[in-house]
Amino acid sequence: MNATEAAEVSRDPRTGARTEGPAVTSVDEVARLAARAARDAERIADCPPAVRADWLEAIATALEHDTEELAALADAETALGVDRLRGEVGRAAAQARFYGRVAAEGSWLDIRIDRFDGVDLRRINRPLGPVAVFGASNFPFAFGVVGHDTSSALAAGCPVLVKGHPAHPRLSARLGATVTAALRAAGAPEGTFALVHGFEAGLALVDAPEVTAVAFTGSQAGGMALVERAARRPVPVPVFAEMGTVNPAVLTPAAAADDEVLRTAASGFVASFTLGQGQFCTKPGLLLAPRGSGAADAVAGALTGTEPGWLLTEGIASAYRKGLADLEAAGARLVASVAAHPEGFAAAPTLLTAPAEALVPGSRLLEECFGPVALVVEYDDAEQLRALLARLQPSLAAAVASAGETDPDLPWLVPLLSRKAGRVVVDGWPTGVVTTWAQQHGGPWPATSRPEATSVGAAALDRFTRPVAFQNVPQPALPDALRDDNPWRLPRRIDGVRETDGGGA
Amino acid sequence: MNATEAAEVSRDPRTGARTEGPAVTSVDEVARLAARAARDAERIADCPPAVRADWLEAIATALEHDTEELAALADAETALGVDRLRGEVGRAAAQARFYGRVAAEGSWLDIRIDRFDGVDLRRINRPLGPVAVFGASNFPFAFGVVGHDTSSALAAGCPVLVKGHPAHPRLSARLGATVTAALRAAGAPEGTFALVHGFEAGLALVDAPEVTAVAFTGSQAGGMALVERAARRPVPVPVFAEMGTVNPAVLTPAAAADDEVLRTAASGFVASFTLGQGQFCTKPGLLLAPRGSGAADAVAGALTGTEPGWLLTEGIASAYRKGLADLEAAGARLVASVAAHPEGFAAAPTLLTAPAEALVPGSRLLEECFGPVALVVEYDDAEQLRALLARLQPSLAAAVASAGETDPDLPWLVPLLSRKAGRVVVDGWPTGVVTTWAQQHGGPWPATSRPEATSVGAAALDRFTRPVAFQNVPQPALPDALRDDNPWRLPRRIDGVRETDGGGA
Repeated sequence: MNATEAAEVSRDPRTGARTEGPAVTSVDEVARLAARAARDAERIADCPPAVRADWLEAIATALEHDTEELAALADAETALGVDRLRGEVGRAAAQARFYGRVAAEGSWLDIRIDRFDGVDLRRINRPLGPVAVFGASNFPFAFGVVGHDTSSALAAGCPVLVKGHPAHPRLSARLGATVTAALRAAGAPEGTFALVHGFEAGLALVDAPEVTAVAFTGSQAGGMALVERAARRPVPVPVFAEMGTVNPAVLTPAAAADDEVLRTAASGFVASFTLGQGQFCTKPGLLLAPRGSGAADAVAGALTGTEPGWLLTEGIASAYRKGLADLEAAGARLVASVAAHPEGFAAAPTLLTAPAEALVPGSRLLEECFGPVALVVEYDDAEQLRALLARLQPSLAAAVASAGETDPDLPWLVPLLSRKAGRVVVDGWPTGVVTTWAQQHGGPWPATSRPEATSVGAAALDRFTRPVAFQNVPQPALPDALRDDNPWRLPRRIDGVRETDGGGA
Repeated sequence: MNATEAAEVSRDPRTGARTEGPAVTSVDEVARLAARAARDAERIADCPPAVRADWLEAIATALEHDTEELAALADAETALGVDRLRGEVGRAAAQARFYGRVAAEGSWLDIRIDRFDGVDLRRINRPLGPVAVFGASNFPFAFGVVGHDTSSALAAGCPVLVKGHPAHPRLSARLGATVTAALRAAGAPEGTFALVHGFEAGLALVDAPEVTAVAFTGSQAGGMALVERAARRPVPVPVFAEMGTVNPAVLTPAAAADDEVLRTAASGFVASFTLGQGQFCTKPGLLLAPRGSGAADAVAGALTGTEPGWLLTEGIASAYRKGLADLEAAGARLVASVAAHPEGFAAAPTLLTAPAEALVPGSRLLEECFGPVALVVEYDDAEQLRALLARLQPSLAAAVASAGETDPDLPWLVPLLSRKAGRVVVDGWPTGVVTTWAQQHGGPWPATSRPEATSVGAAALDRFTRPVAFQNVPQPALPDALRDDNPWRLPRRIDGVRETDGGGA
């Protein structure tokens, strides 16, 4: 094996400069780590959820403590800017705490107890076991080594095996060390967490018999490859792949008729599609605007003030340039662009337009182009708008820029969009996914591989559990959470009715 | 197309006699029915759940009204006996009512509303759309045309397209007519329900672009074929296949040491594995008993009084005879059997034994044999028992016959079994799956294709929904269920906290 195969390579997107990254993990070492995770899985699953919340608190505190160092390291590998990255460290810490609170609250265990005719039946969601996590390039903290997938899986009681991201290998290694130390200090079993590096190690992780689920955030190609690989295992496991498509935004006629609303929408759209250099899975990539509304000009005007930046990797930068060329070849026309930096993985923020007729199934115009580009397409009337929306792929999110709650198009647009998206936003933009109880970050295939799942919000834990019923099992042999005395004071449904207090002794 | 291809053939298992069944459904007609279901899907989804509960009540009433006729027709095609079938009609009616109540109660919608920093985020589970249902041969009512899958999908707001079962085609057609008439009289849209007949029609159903999920109950081969076919669709859809494996039962040393407990366990085991001629997916197919406990003799004694019966189809009967031969070829030895009827699809209730060493991964002994046969295997000690259990495939259910709550083996056996089964039963048998809030009828792969799902109990609705979040959507454009005034009085979680009353106006 030569040097480039033995270690990851870290690149500086601003210059392209290379630094040696962490050593790749051998397939044997992956097997050892998976076995260690499986060995400790039951101990982790049987911990009271409040104990795992303490582990997550320890991780959050460690992240916060190292914020400056982490943000600087991330900036050197992603060029996303220290301010944004500092904020994202805080966000990852807040997520870890949130999932810990959700774990301790206990609704995710969905405890149900029925007693009738001599039968005692008790149901609970049990952690699946070791989870393999493949983080995203574009959120090195929030969807990274210790992002949503890792924190929610740990909260749900599953050991986590993370594949470090090749776009930020040194940061991955640093985060891995932070998490490992925090968990050890908090008293978590050794098998609770492990990090591996390298492409082959990632494949070994998906194939490891001990792995019970895979969580992935990234491209269609990457996600579908994992879905197919996991389906070919002797024992298939679910892959929760959050991949993304083109997220549409609609400007209604009433919104377009009001100059101020139009200007606000145009600048909001630009801010959203260029945020993080357009490297968001929730980027609004398409604005459908009424014909003659002047929306394209308004958006072009707003684009003028945009600062150019760098994309995360050389591959993303070249895919972006190819994407722009392919979009033009598919019928798009340049409206405006901002000059790119002269070196590094630079990208020119770009606005395109295309005739409605060009948006046909199979067209490149309907596929995601990762980076700071969006398309404005004009529609004639509600009928054509409806037809255009029908042709789009389902998406993680969809947005409407409206004239407010009396806008006559909202009552049909919102339900229609809700049938094709995981989240519908009115008078806001889909970038920015808050971590709360009601969040849904998912969507119909092919936006995700598992439309019933979310990778953000309280329901993220649900992905990593399986229900089990216990029939007439004596108290001493029941899991603690199902015992009559409810020692963890978890919410329960008894004979079909929710207990109104926490129950318990 | 010749006559046998144009119509299904109904067989009498007691004699093998043939009767012409309903005409097969053309692929064009399947397409028309799927389009009709999709046309009405939103109307059905937007109904208050209590309205759909009324539809299910109408179905239940119609089933009860026709009990005698339905039971007689089912008996002619299944030989399961009129008494059992009469009871099963009542069970299907009770299920329909139960799922209607669950729908109206509304927890399955999992409504969450968060408000913070000017953001209003509301999340709800939305019905997926048309669901294709493939019922089971062995429960013509409870898992048939209007069994668990159909009733729970309707309750969740999904139109249902059922493939009639070739083992009871005339009953399927009759049930289809009953359901159609009941739904029409109750005011349900025309697209709420349809029935198709024939193998090609079934494939067309799985391929129909309008179909959003498939529910199946039956064999490994059938289930896996549907899983693979649905994965190859341009838009893959989930297949909830409840297939089943060998459900193990363990007799503990303490139980075996008590003569009365042993005798009770032996007769309970026989009653369970021969129930419905052993044609239950929850049949306990394997009893692990302490060496020298005399369990095999006790079970053999209990088998003596068993009445032989007929299997559902010629195919099942010949697979049963082949299965017995294959089990013996794999190392099993006959302990006892009851003479089979001389004609029809007859089966001899049979008890086999095998040495523990023969239970190795890949052995036929570890695979399901549908019909009235079970295997008794003796173990030396806890260590060997643990090793034997590790070699088994995961299952829908697992049972322990114990000496009661002080039995020292329960505290390790129950958790171990819960890691490999969807339900663990102590001092009872897995056959008999009650329809309640806490039920879990599912299990790890390959017992089912979706270990997170259940096909019985309140959570059965969850299979047919997908969450959607609405961000800053004005009240008039929200789904009724998410409006501030909570017109359907559904349970909700506000800012992470459950409302303690039903909320609403």
